[in-house]
Amino acid sequence: MNTKRIMSGIIGVLAGLLVAMIVFTDFNQTETVSSADNKTNAEKVYVAPGEQDDYYMMASGGHSGQLFVYGLPSMRLIRQVPVFSPDPATGYGFDKKSKEMLNGYKWGDFHHPAISETEGEYDGRALFASDVGNNRAAYVDLETFHTTDILEIPNISGPHCAAFVTPNSEYFFLPTRFSVPLGDEYVGLDDFSEEYKGVMSAVKPDFENNSLEIAYQVMLPPWSYDLSDAGKGQSNGWGFLSTYNTEEATTTLEINASQNDRDYIVMFNWEQISKEVEEGNYEEVNGVKMFDPLEHPGSVYLVPAPKSPHGVDVTPDGDHFIASGKLSPTTTMFSVEKALEAIENEDFQGEAQGLPILTYESVVDKEVEVGLGPLHTQFDDKGNAYTTLFIDSQVVKWDLESGKVIDKEEVSYSPGHLTAVEGDTAAPGGDWLVSLNKIAKDHYLSVGPSHPESMDLIDISGETIEVVGSAPSQPEPHYAQIINADKINTTEVYDKDEDRENAVWDQADTRIERDGDEVHVYGIAMRSRFIFDADSDRPDTVTVKEGDTVHFHITNTDRDEDITHGMGINGYNENFEIQPGETKTLTIEADKSGSYPIYCTNFCSALHQEMTGYLLVEPK
Amino acid sequence: MNTKRIMSGIIGVLAGLLVAMIVFTDFNQTETVSSADNKTNAEKVYVAPGEQDDYYMMASGGHSGQLFVYGLPSMRLIRQVPVFSPDPATGYGFDKKSKEMLNGYKWGDFHHPAISETEGEYDGRALFASDVGNNRAAYVDLETFHTTDILEIPNISGPHCAAFVTPNSEYFFLPTRFSVPLGDEYVGLDDFSEEYKGVMSAVKPDFENNSLEIAYQVMLPPWSYDLSDAGKGQSNGWGFLSTYNTEEATTTLEINASQNDRDYIVMFNWEQISKEVEEGNYEEVNGVKMFDPLEHPGSVYLVPAPKSPHGVDVTPDGDHFIASGKLSPTTTMFSVEKALEAIENEDFQGEAQGLPILTYESVVDKEVEVGLGPLHTQFDDKGNAYTTLFIDSQVVKWDLESGKVIDKEEVSYSPGHLTAVEGDTAAPGGDWLVSLNKIAKDHYLSVGPSHPESMDLIDISGETIEVVGSAPSQPEPHYAQIINADKINTTEVYDKDEDRENAVWDQADTRIERDGDEVHVYGIAMRSRFIFDADSDRPDTVTVKEGDTVHFHITNTDRDEDITHGMGINGYNENFEIQPGETKTLTIEADKSGSYPIYCTNFCSALHQEMTGYLLVEPK
Repeated sequence: MNTKRIMSGIIGVLAGLLVAMIVFTDFNQTETVSSADNKTNAEKVYVAPGEQDDYYMMASGGHSGQLFVYGLPSMRLIRQVPVFSPDPATGYGFDKKSKEMLNGYKWGDFHHPAISETEGEYDGRALFASDVGNNRAAYVDLETFHTTDILEIPNISGPHCAAFVTPNSEYFFLPTRFSVPLGDEYVGLDDFSEEYKGVMSAVKPDFENNSLEIAYQVMLPPWSYDLSDAGKGQSNGWGFLSTYNTEEATTTLEINASQNDRDYIVMFNWEQISKEVEEGNYEEVNGVKMFDPLEHPGSVYLVPAPKSPHGVDVTPDGDHFIASGKLSPTTTMFSVEKALEAIENEDFQGEAQGLPILTYESVVDKEVEVGLGPLHTQFDDKGNAYTTLFIDSQVVKWDLESGKVIDKEEVSYSPGHLTAVEGDTAAPGGDWLVSLNKIAKDHYLSVGPSHPESMDLIDISGETIEVVGSAPSQPEPHYAQIINADKINTTEVYDKDEDRENAVWDQADTRIERDGDEVHVYGIAMRSRFIFDADSDRPDTVTVKEGDTVHFHITNTDRDEDITHGMGINGYNENFEIQPGETKTLTIEADKSGSYPIYCTNFCSALHQEMTGYLLVEPK
Repeated sequence: MNTKRIMSGIIGVLAGLLVAMIVFTDFNQTETVSSADNKTNAEKVYVAPGEQDDYYMMASGGHSGQLFVYGLPSMRLIRQVPVFSPDPATGYGFDKKSKEMLNGYKWGDFHHPAISETEGEYDGRALFASDVGNNRAAYVDLETFHTTDILEIPNISGPHCAAFVTPNSEYFFLPTRFSVPLGDEYVGLDDFSEEYKGVMSAVKPDFENNSLEIAYQVMLPPWSYDLSDAGKGQSNGWGFLSTYNTEEATTTLEINASQNDRDYIVMFNWEQISKEVEEGNYEEVNGVKMFDPLEHPGSVYLVPAPKSPHGVDVTPDGDHFIASGKLSPTTTMFSVEKALEAIENEDFQGEAQGLPILTYESVVDKEVEVGLGPLHTQFDDKGNAYTTLFIDSQVVKWDLESGKVIDKEEVSYSPGHLTAVEGDTAAPGGDWLVSLNKIAKDHYLSVGPSHPESMDLIDISGETIEVVGSAPSQPEPHYAQIINADKINTTEVYDKDEDRENAVWDQADTRIERDGDEVHVYGIAMRSRFIFDADSDRPDTVTVKEGDTVHFHITNTDRDEDITHGMGINGYNENFEIQPGETKTLTIEADKSGSYPIYCTNFCSALHQEMTGYLLVEPK
């Protein structure tokens, strides 16, 4: 294959066209008064000091590995919640528990967040995350906004097409963007089509313990799985995945994975697969139950969809699924009823990698001409769909029933996903939509050669839609979900748990214990001092010997709202926070002698500056 | 000393009072129409989509170690710029250059940013940062918003009282919060007063090379140095530092460092010290020129100031300096003229640690009763001062001339610093002030037991002042500076430098070279593919052997605005970004065999998903 010649030809046309549109598109918006409620746009997005936003927007932080929590409609960033990467500010990845959870990983690529659901609606209990960079899944507890479990998943590479939850959070699924040889073996790329697999994982959340476990995996063809959605209503029990590179190209995908006019939507019956796995229809691979749909047919089907689809989105009623071919000018609406009928009737137009392909014409409901580069679709409560157009830099509103385009609005620029209030659920809202744009260019004050991503807030309460606010976003909001604020019930302070391991609640119980060269400090952080050993002349000093291993077990006994303490050890490269009522352990190797100030790093009171002590390391 | 008994007594009164105020204070603001310009508060803070903010606010990120760049008046977070801690999103600390710069440090505690100045005004060239956690200083280039140099500074601990620049950026100074034994020796705390020192560093910026070097250090008494400011006008050539713990307590500072009714402002003549150091009046300690003001008197003086002052702030005209005793209800204004006269006349009321103390009555101008817990003062262009009141949770406006309080405004809650437009300069603005609050409590949607910090935007354009906007802030804005947007001139793309080491601009020059078990990949990232070796059948695959060391030298040849590429290696725990026109090197140890997808992590085009390749590691 002469790749170089292909490059110099096709690239110039295809990429050149796209690039020109990304780089040279430039739009201006002017402020207008909405006819709907006579509020100016300024008033629509304004949340006065002391007032709270109506919605949480939970946005993936992409290659930062973290979760970003915004308030809507103000679009204020409330909190960065560390998930897949260390976080120096909170000491996530520093203290014992979070260090073990991160297990040496220094970054992650958090793609698509999924809030847990009950009866098809966000329930605000937990948020599930997937890491495309290092093949992990995470459980974020929405009572504490803490990551409570991280699962390393074998046999997979890049769970991009995730996470989506089933309507009662029975599972969340993580299909993968990359195919790799099964069992982590080394196999050359010449054997790609035979030996590489696109494995999908079914992960089961445990809401009692805020944890995760792998239920099983499903072996899929060596394609790229991009986005996904769970069925609901009549499609409950099914999952839908978009695919690209069904060409099975192994190089220069820009060209070679853009050859077929149609790729596939994968429909899989997770209820049936779960049953089959329970019945023993699997093989173990790397300790995981691997289900092979070729061995056990009847649960996985392919639906042809226009060229390299990005999003596949199930309508709120569960009756249709919509696939957007990013290299086509249309978005395609499929009928669940027709698809189930075609499966029933074995109305197949062929097979690919052994999986039956439903006849396109039997399943399609309509093709909607939305514009160039459709990527992802969300919904409102009035029967409308909203689709991002990456190439046109627009969001288009269209009518689900008629397929007619109602309005288009410029966004800045190159939107990937979009997210509506409760937009993935059986009961979407209808007031706000946020376009998650990949390119900001000149949209905000310049911060050098690289700009932030951008988010445009769109008022969808009227017949026409309008961008009314805009905010830079942190890297990189591949997707976000918007949940009603009243569904989130947070913990104010941690319980005073007398039985908690290593916790000390009474100053009299603080102590420093030595066992060989292991030193255990059972201490307290409180306004405005550390107490490591109340009986000592200097209760806030820890004296050890060079070569000791020192374990600081510190409890924040200030059980008042928002009184978090930090503990930094100057020159020892360590810091962690302890939230009100929390106990944490930090272990250090005292490998250099000297005097090292210990200090509270999280402002806690008027005497915060005085909250200091010393780690004294006596030379060997 | 029976510390426990003291604790159970004094603590109850002192801390209890403060804590109660922090925890139970609760205010509501309602939106009002300002009489000044008939704009609603919503309209004042609104920056319509596509419009840019008027000001940059550069905020320290405290124990995150990073710089947060906000736009004003919208208060939108534009960018997190990594400085002292690794940043997974950009690969800061991952690629060769930034990894060497961070040198294994996994966190920092960025306290006070200082924008470079020319003739006493911000010039927008660079921003200097100090790291309280690990004793470093950093140079952030404001053309690229990249950290270009980090200096590890010996002999010091916790450069909190920093950074402040001299009016023409001759130096920036880093006095320390903690005292440690000179030369990093181990010394017990019983010898604190004799053997511990509070060393201040003079760092010289090199604007040609965007780098830093230590010019000299100054040995100071073993006190805590909190905040600082440079003189200007008639005080040009002088620096001012606030101190606490002049009691030289070594434990339970909450009580023991709050004994003296007055601590000191240190006045030091940096012009004179710089000359003396040039003349050889120093000793070398750990390779640094150490100046001892006791050996060479006449350049360092003490001014008594009320109890544990936090801020010391020089008025825009340079005629006065203002010290705020955080445990007193007043802020004190001193006359520079009187201080210089007292020095001239040797009008001393005694000495401390060998340094002369100017007679308080000879130097004081007035004591202003501002309210409880004054911390830090900023200025406008009309002769007014603005002081934060930590305990009262207020910002107070007062008249510099008369010392009369003009207005007070509630903020939410417990403000530390405040920052006005160009507020540290000889020519402050007069429209906006931001109160940097330590406690947010119920001010925003709850994100668990720990809340973000908060910032209140205050309109100071009229006679009275009013909070008109509020935004959560990222941890922890100890201080921020606000600069006019037109003073920042950023680089749009990096030059196509043909001589740049390891850069490859032409596809034909891409190649993979092996030297023993070292493999060098000279590659290109461009929309929408990686080219590691254009002559290969698979130009985007790198095949190596287990045990090889692989150096990826990657140039982003897309020199278009905002087209940043990322390069992640799935399962190999590596990711870095390459901005338009930039070249970076990433080195990995290929220590596990298998097939590892390489992919672009920073969305770059419609075919971004296709921008992938493989790292194939053949087993040994």
